[in-house]
Amino acid sequence: MRLSNYFLPTTKENPAEAEIVSHRLMLRAGMVRQLSAGIYSWLPLGFKVLQKIEAIVREEQEKAGALAILMPTIQPADLWRESGRYDDYGAEMLRIKDRKDREMLYGPTNEEAVTDIFRGTVRSYKDLPKNLYHVQWKFRDEVRPRFGVMRGREFLMKDNYSFDLDKEGAIRSYNAMFVAYLRTFARLGLKAIPMAADTGPIGGDLSHEFIVLAETGESEVYYHKDFEALDPMIDVDYTKDLQPTIDQWTANYAATDEKHDANSDIDSADLITGRGIEVGHIFYFGTKYSDAMGATVQGPNDDTIAVEMGSYGIGVSRLVGAIIEASHDDKGIVWPESVAPFKVGIINIRADDDACVEAADTLYKQMEEAGVEALYDDRADRAGVKFSTMELIGLPWFITIGPRGVKNNLVELVNRKTGEKVEVSPEEALKRMIG
Amino acid sequence: MRLSNYFLPTTKENPAEAEIVSHRLMLRAGMVRQLSAGIYSWLPLGFKVLQKIEAIVREEQEKAGALAILMPTIQPADLWRESGRYDDYGAEMLRIKDRKDREMLYGPTNEEAVTDIFRGTVRSYKDLPKNLYHVQWKFRDEVRPRFGVMRGREFLMKDNYSFDLDKEGAIRSYNAMFVAYLRTFARLGLKAIPMAADTGPIGGDLSHEFIVLAETGESEVYYHKDFEALDPMIDVDYTKDLQPTIDQWTANYAATDEKHDANSDIDSADLITGRGIEVGHIFYFGTKYSDAMGATVQGPNDDTIAVEMGSYGIGVSRLVGAIIEASHDDKGIVWPESVAPFKVGIINIRADDDACVEAADTLYKQMEEAGVEALYDDRADRAGVKFSTMELIGLPWFITIGPRGVKNNLVELVNRKTGEKVEVSPEEALKRMIG
Repeated sequence: MRLSNYFLPTTKENPAEAEIVSHRLMLRAGMVRQLSAGIYSWLPLGFKVLQKIEAIVREEQEKAGALAILMPTIQPADLWRESGRYDDYGAEMLRIKDRKDREMLYGPTNEEAVTDIFRGTVRSYKDLPKNLYHVQWKFRDEVRPRFGVMRGREFLMKDNYSFDLDKEGAIRSYNAMFVAYLRTFARLGLKAIPMAADTGPIGGDLSHEFIVLAETGESEVYYHKDFEALDPMIDVDYTKDLQPTIDQWTANYAATDEKHDANSDIDSADLITGRGIEVGHIFYFGTKYSDAMGATVQGPNDDTIAVEMGSYGIGVSRLVGAIIEASHDDKGIVWPESVAPFKVGIINIRADDDACVEAADTLYKQMEEAGVEALYDDRADRAGVKFSTMELIGLPWFITIGPRGVKNNLVELVNRKTGEKVEVSPEEALKRMIG
Repeated sequence: MRLSNYFLPTTKENPAEAEIVSHRLMLRAGMVRQLSAGIYSWLPLGFKVLQKIEAIVREEQEKAGALAILMPTIQPADLWRESGRYDDYGAEMLRIKDRKDREMLYGPTNEEAVTDIFRGTVRSYKDLPKNLYHVQWKFRDEVRPRFGVMRGREFLMKDNYSFDLDKEGAIRSYNAMFVAYLRTFARLGLKAIPMAADTGPIGGDLSHEFIVLAETGESEVYYHKDFEALDPMIDVDYTKDLQPTIDQWTANYAATDEKHDANSDIDSADLITGRGIEVGHIFYFGTKYSDAMGATVQGPNDDTIAVEMGSYGIGVSRLVGAIIEASHDDKGIVWPESVAPFKVGIINIRADDDACVEAADTLYKQMEEAGVEALYDDRADRAGVKFSTMELIGLPWFITIGPRGVKNNLVELVNRKTGEKVEVSPEEALKRMIG
């Protein structure tokens, strides 16, 4: 993409309303723009990152056997009356009356909606297990929306729902999602630690939050140092028993602020105190919704069995902020390659030099042809402006083309994260970006 | 995908509420399920088709130079007061009050929201032209939602917005979208005819609707027979002047019911009367929104210029229904290959025969490895049930494996559209599906 054709409204000023670094950098890098309190438009750079995160989340869901569906954003209130949550949910639920005065709501989550699909379509235990996921916008009318996309009102979430014949099956489904989440966050370049959690308005008696470690995280977290040696990129076979893996990941102490027990028997030498951001939450809640809503199947002995359910959520739009919180420096964002909006930036430091323009155009064209996602700063601006832009938007690599290099068939390849610079031929730079 | 692992709740009965064939077939094929009047959940088969249509729509937008963004579903009422449309829009707009009693709405379209982004970020004529698109859920509170996803309340739409310095530029943008739409619908297997249209609540003085021809279409349309010879799959170069192409496509008479002039001078021998479905609508409306909302740029002579705008919509979820209306038979759906949820179905007609099971398993595995999207009916059902299911869901091809064939290393390859059957080796069947 040529920057002259792109839409990247960056700013130098720090926006006054942004209290945390991810919010500040997302606004400055032209990734999002607020439309109303806690409601954001995603501009091209931000949307690209959002799409990449969503794609990884989807891949890991599919690998774990979940099937993609898509439920609507607007739901009828009556469905929530069946589960009893319509009155429970409080002011965070955006309540709506349509033109015929029917009570509707903007879904903050989808347990009722998916249970309605299930009870209307599945009849036999032979059709179990099922695990249905979707990635859809949700609305939670926060009293005080803040921190940009980290605590917005309209936000993108992957949520899914498992249906099993018995508790044993439900725990298998829960375990599969546990591992899928570890893998998902690892692929996003994040270190996430699962911590036993309260179940809140979802209900149930087994629940884990996945907390990303970030110095600027929203809450204090406590965890055993042995977590640091565990590799979340588990080479998983979902047809096998995953309990040993789960046991390994739940053996050690880990707790958020809310659940931390200052009197726990963990050796203080083993305890790490850090800060974290919640990016995922999984629940096993048995028959809470299937009992209330009549989601049953015919069992093997012709009996009627309420299905065992779990639900699993990942905050997709929140992750954009969380990744920035976990990966930035004083110059700007430092994207992990897996979610970077472009892999490499190309900077022509002398836009008024024909030889430089030609060299930069050629390299850009070769990148495009090779399928390397490149953002080419072809503007007439000063080199300093171009460097600052690249550093701010945080592409993993950038390549600098200048008059001295062009004479010697050399470009400078810079690693955004380490700052390491090497002079190589344009051919070599291309090769490294492809490889 | 093995059908035993999939979620495909088909039904034999014709749902009483479905008045038109696409609605009937989408319900029967387990593609969607109604959650509330005019509000649908997309089940795996339907969601796959929706995704494929969206992908093609996006590809053609990008090719034409539009940049992907994503605007939220919920918008503040004040923005619509600026354009004057808050009061104009009527009961179709879903109006909402949030917890702080602020007036909000569920966007039925996004002219105001995108104009707000533009005026907040673009300053100079040098940044023009811009064309921003998104694919997002919309809500229009129809008095009488019906026809399934064809006239739902919550629906998925691709809408985009062009910003130009002058009318000449705006017409260039309009023409680019005109051609992109012809290509998009052609790739979706549809014959779409552009017809001059009223501008309605969007405003402006130039507008075309794109009408898909389908015997079961919602409205009567009239068009010159010469349209049949035009090829919409235009080999376009968007850097060139597209006016000659547009002239070719607008030279002949074409009108919907509403605009049809029974006294037009077209020779009655040239006039075809058919039925059609609106799937796209494009508008050039000049400075209607930029004047009202102060979306200006600094011009080349330091003057302040209100930008010239157009907007362009494709009903993505509606297209699923429209494609079925245009392509079905008495047995079920007949998907064009470009949007088929799977390319091929594999039917083992004797699930109790080990040799058949092995042959079917092997062929399915080979398809998967070759990247061919195959749906393998591995259920214990009777062959008749399996055939009916495949015919109903309309995959372009299906392959039948039975005891006689297995003995002779033969399978039957059936073309869903033509009904043509050939006996070939499994190797040859695989090769044809890859090719």
